[in-house]
Amino acid sequence: MWSYSRDVNYYETDRMGVIHHSNYLRILEEARLAWMEDNLMSYAEMERQGIVVPFTESRSTFMGFLRFGDTFRVEMELSRFTGLRMHFRYRMYNATTDELCHEAETVHYTTTREDYKPASIKRSHPEVFKKLKALTGGKQEQQCRH
Amino acid sequence: MWSYSRDVNYYETDRMGVIHHSNYLRILEEARLAWMEDNLMSYAEMERQGIVVPFTESRSTFMGFLRFGDTFRVEMELSRFTGLRMHFRYRMYNATTDELCHEAETVHYTTTREDYKPASIKRSHPEVFKKLKALTGGKQEQQCRH
Amino acid sequence: MWSYSRDVNYYETDRMGVIHHSNYLRILEEARLAWMEDNLMSYAEMERQGIVVPFTESRSTFMGFLRFGDTFRVEMELSRFTGLRMHFRYRMYNATTDELCHEAETVHYTTTREDYKPASIKRSHPEVFKKLKALTGGKQEQQCRH
Amino acid sequence: MWSYSRDVNYYETDRMGVIHHSNYLRILEEARLAWMEDNLMSYAEMERQGIVVPFTESRSTFMGFLRFGDTFRVEMELSRFTGLRMHFRYRMYNATTDELCHEAETVHYTTTREDYKPASIKRSHPEVFKKLKALTGGKQEQQCRH
Repeated sequence: MWSYSRDVNYYETDRMGVIHHSNYLRILEEARLAWMEDNLMSYAEMERQGIVVPFTESRSTFMGFLRFGDTFRVEMELSRFTGLRMHFRYRMYNATTDELCHEAETVHYTTTREDYKPASIKRSHPEVFKKLKALTGGKQEQQCRH
Repeated sequence: MWSYSRDVNYYETDRMGVIHHSNYLRILEEARLAWMEDNLMSYAEMERQGIVVPFTESRSTFMGFLRFGDTFRVEMELSRFTGLRMHFRYRMYNATTDELCHEAETVHYTTTREDYKPASIKRSHPEVFKKLKALTGGKQEQQCRH
Repeated sequence: MWSYSRDVNYYETDRMGVIHHSNYLRILEEARLAWMEDNLMSYAEMERQGIVVPFTESRSTFMGFLRFGDTFRVEMELSRFTGLRMHFRYRMYNATTDELCHEAETVHYTTTREDYKPASIKRSHPEVFKKLKALTGGKQEQQCRH
Repeated sequence: MWSYSRDVNYYETDRMGVIHHSNYLRILEEARLAWMEDNLMSYAEMERQGIVVPFTESRSTFMGFLRFGDTFRVEMELSRFTGLRMHFRYRMYNATTDELCHEAETVHYTTTREDYKPASIKRSHPEVFKKLKALTGGKQEQQCRH
């Protein structure tokens, strides 16, 4: 499965000595945008083409803590593309111990509108649409990014 | 219902011009700790008494955007206390338009252990335990905090 | 002197148990924009009028730590307005002990340009310009904001 | 000169469309801790050995903006070690255009005390002390990370 790894940053920890829970959504964003760049196109390029992908739902479970000095690995996939909505699934591991420490799902939608209301890209950007469809058919590249 | 309000900070926005989704978990934490202070005791005091309340689950739905210049209001309650886990429910509104822009649930557990593994406070802190039980019986104070 | 106060947020702390140094710039921004709203106009309103005020320089000295559970007070003033640049000075205190824990100066400039390059507002927004000039002449309102 | 590079994260931008100024201190911390790991030892290891290095002063000048889609490069050095204080100097460049966009200096001190008051490590950790002295004598390794 595609994965994204890096070390925990000092500024991501809180007074419990672990990554603050809000920072997991930032790490998932880093992983997701790196996944897009490897599998589809960079999100900066998508924006230049007029496509924005707002965040609309999330579900997260925290099973273990990550501390400064740890390295994590996010394994992720585009689990579903409805034509409008993208569902991503993530599992985050402590890269040293292989302990599963976080599971999450995030849901996003496409838009080409200035008010960010949902809009299908099927007609406006048929190639991006097709690629997204293909990516949920089990054809994701097996790549790893540090 | 108990509520917490403040203005959107400039640094909470991202290049879409709206509050970055990760910051909602920070705002919910602000609201939750203010709720604790009003209804139970300050979380700093809880920590001094040896109780820590880690974050373990969240579910969030984003229905509307909040922008710099907006004021929001978080309405929240302790919806359930299992004896170990606390479930909080939140609804966030644009305070000017009264538009519902965010719904969330977060789950937490109590611990008195240095490794942060779950531990009931029923025997170690019976008064806090009783208060938490009472707070889910519909006896929450009707207070508002800016 | 004009001042801005609030409690330390849990998510602002790091694994040393104190506010992470990067968050002081966010707190100074909160204070500065509240100062603008009280003394000039809200920054959201300034942006609507076409004025942007980028950040260009800072100098900070950290003398004491602020912890979760502490309340701080930022005393600040517009120390200088060159016609283009605004210099703000800040002293941050632990509001309980009155210990001085941070001193800073930040420099900003006005612009009305899309590329954010410096541009005087003397002709485009003469009233804002005059008000800024007056604010450095010792006529700042003596207000306090929580 | 030793350097640290990475892409701008989406969540680091603000509604101006550029990296929020507070995030530069976080990026400098990332660079500094990577420099320590390459030239001295990992900061997690230093903490295990009982050494903490609090942040005490900073001076920053912002000459250009960094946007989502940009890659930056931080060139840095330990410019001075007084025996107690470390002075680091940084120049941040847009890695694509080579435009200098940020210059900064940060000052830190060593401590082995629980209250974080300054304490020399000359006697407690003579080897770390010697290495720091040597690193300001022009013997810094010429390394690049990434």
